[in-house]
Amino acid sequence: MDDRIRDHAETLVDWSARIEDGDDVVVRVGEGAHDLAVAVAAALGERGANPVTVYSSEEVERAYLRAHDDAFGDAPHELALYEQADSVLSLGAERNTAATADVPADRSQAYSRARQDVGEARLDTDWVSTLHPTRALAQEAGMAYEAYCDFVYDATLRDWESLAAEMDQLKAVFDEGSEVRIVTDGTDLTLFIDGRTAVNSAASVAYDSHNLPSGEVFTAPYDTAGVVTFDVPMTIRGRRVRDARLTFKDGVVVDWEAAQGEDVLTEVIETDGGSRQLGELGVGMNRGIDRPTGRVLFDEKMAGTVHLALGRAYDACLPEGESGNDSAVHVDLITNMDEGSRLEVDGEVVQRDGRFRWEDGFDA
Amino acid sequence: MDDRIRDHAETLVDWSARIEDGDDVVVRVGEGAHDLAVAVAAALGERGANPVTVYSSEEVERAYLRAHDDAFGDAPHELALYEQADSVLSLGAERNTAATADVPADRSQAYSRARQDVGEARLDTDWVSTLHPTRALAQEAGMAYEAYCDFVYDATLRDWESLAAEMDQLKAVFDEGSEVRIVTDGTDLTLFIDGRTAVNSAASVAYDSHNLPSGEVFTAPYDTAGVVTFDVPMTIRGRRVRDARLTFKDGVVVDWEAAQGEDVLTEVIETDGGSRQLGELGVGMNRGIDRPTGRVLFDEKMAGTVHLALGRAYDACLPEGESGNDSAVHVDLITNMDEGSRLEVDGEVVQRDGRFRWEDGFDA
Repeated sequence: MDDRIRDHAETLVDWSARIEDGDDVVVRVGEGAHDLAVAVAAALGERGANPVTVYSSEEVERAYLRAHDDAFGDAPHELALYEQADSVLSLGAERNTAATADVPADRSQAYSRARQDVGEARLDTDWVSTLHPTRALAQEAGMAYEAYCDFVYDATLRDWESLAAEMDQLKAVFDEGSEVRIVTDGTDLTLFIDGRTAVNSAASVAYDSHNLPSGEVFTAPYDTAGVVTFDVPMTIRGRRVRDARLTFKDGVVVDWEAAQGEDVLTEVIETDGGSRQLGELGVGMNRGIDRPTGRVLFDEKMAGTVHLALGRAYDACLPEGESGNDSAVHVDLITNMDEGSRLEVDGEVVQRDGRFRWEDGFDA
Repeated sequence: MDDRIRDHAETLVDWSARIEDGDDVVVRVGEGAHDLAVAVAAALGERGANPVTVYSSEEVERAYLRAHDDAFGDAPHELALYEQADSVLSLGAERNTAATADVPADRSQAYSRARQDVGEARLDTDWVSTLHPTRALAQEAGMAYEAYCDFVYDATLRDWESLAAEMDQLKAVFDEGSEVRIVTDGTDLTLFIDGRTAVNSAASVAYDSHNLPSGEVFTAPYDTAGVVTFDVPMTIRGRRVRDARLTFKDGVVVDWEAAQGEDVLTEVIETDGGSRQLGELGVGMNRGIDRPTGRVLFDEKMAGTVHLALGRAYDACLPEGESGNDSAVHVDLITNMDEGSRLEVDGEVVQRDGRFRWEDGFDA
């Protein structure tokens, strides 16, 4: 076994999920995740945890959903499994990213609604989602398999402790700040973050961060104004979106266009009231991610990018008891912060040309 | 997908497990059982059942057990999953039948003890175990993969309704009978079955039968006397046993030998008080099984064989509240009932030369 698979498992179990002796763990094993599941099982055995492994297969789900008639009942056994679990480790590993392409959308939605309690029980645990490289995922990224493996492990096997410390500096600036300005090619946008709390998403439940890899600092902005161009290509609902350009006024999108995929962008924006506003401002800080691969899990963490999400805000960013922007959607869009860009908080430059003010070579 | 996989799934779901709308089902997917899991998911979707798929991997279990320190805690989440389930479908499909060969036996036993409640909860459901052909299983059987697939489906895709009706005839003879005599090459054995109930093991929970394939009638004998030679080769605890020969007196083994594997036979017989007595007399009646493959699940169902098990008796064969022969072991040994053999009940020949009295060509 590739040593990096063992390192991945140990990072997942120790740094991300903080598994301890006696923890009751559910491991959700994707179709192509067998090797990672074996390494995770060894790590869980060493820590004295009690795992149940669930087979999380897109092809099994497709077959079930296509054969079903839409009237889904409860699944008390599945609910009980997650209600009794301390942690849920999801090892994503698709063997075909189009495996469920022919499942009717309303069928999937009916199933999700019927299993909402199961999903909520899962989110009530110390859950972490990660990804094991497969040829299908490499293909989606347009990369050779071995190169994609290198990419995944570079992104995942970071010195998380030191990245968390670095990200804490940006979190402090956001927590104390009021007005954010983002300036880059095709973008001059102002957002307010006063009274909001930034999350240091350091790939660990100890940081309220549930993805491995992670490596972003995000908060919930309001009163957005100006123009933003998203030059990192995205796949939204299976459709490619390039160079989306949004104009905000008084916190709301008033105009939009895209070089490609403007129709799906329109669909997203017109979903509901909340989908015309931003739910998230995030700053990618993971230097192991050096290119977009079409998977938000990675792309939004890429160092030297900023992402904004149309739709729902995360409660963690809001004062206790207050709810932020609400919407059925949360769609991330990403822009590069390279040469000529700057990120300002209350008029002070925090990042210029993709370099933070605590980094060597930063030029205020 | 091979049509036989779909037929297998439908037989499992409909005939064996009797799945109905709204049933909460756990599907345990062996490492090589993906295709059968997909077919089972489709069948469960059609019937409106609610499945959870568990990944049942020998390699995952090996990694976990080898890393653990032996002090296993409870697994309340796993227990809850099975306690809330109506049915458990186990799709065995080993990719390496030696996958757990280097797990210390005491570690496995400690784990089994710690999960005894989970095992019991599973047995309290309408559980069915079946097997999906893999190359590893073909290899164990000494067969080419395609030939092994043919073998498995011939054994599994029977006309179960008509076999159940045929087996009911032997069950009636056993239920009414008192003394059984088995005569074949190297064998002349007398057993008593008075007051015992035979099980018509027709591969369905409706018949108290939990294996697919099945196809045997079995009961719990006592007061065995005489000699029996088991000419079907067996693998017991990983060791080959050939031509085991047991001598019984007053229900107890008093002498034994084997052409190969006598040491493991001795181990079994000397386990405890109950391991010197028989717990089961079974008659194989599945004509789809035309050769031994080294797997008891199949071998003991082979038409034209009789098997006897040293050790524990099944409660289903005993009068309500009464317990039969008790032992930590239950080890099946098989003998061919071919040319020159006869099976008598109370002096009447029920089977001669491998042919039952209700079959064409039977010669009383």
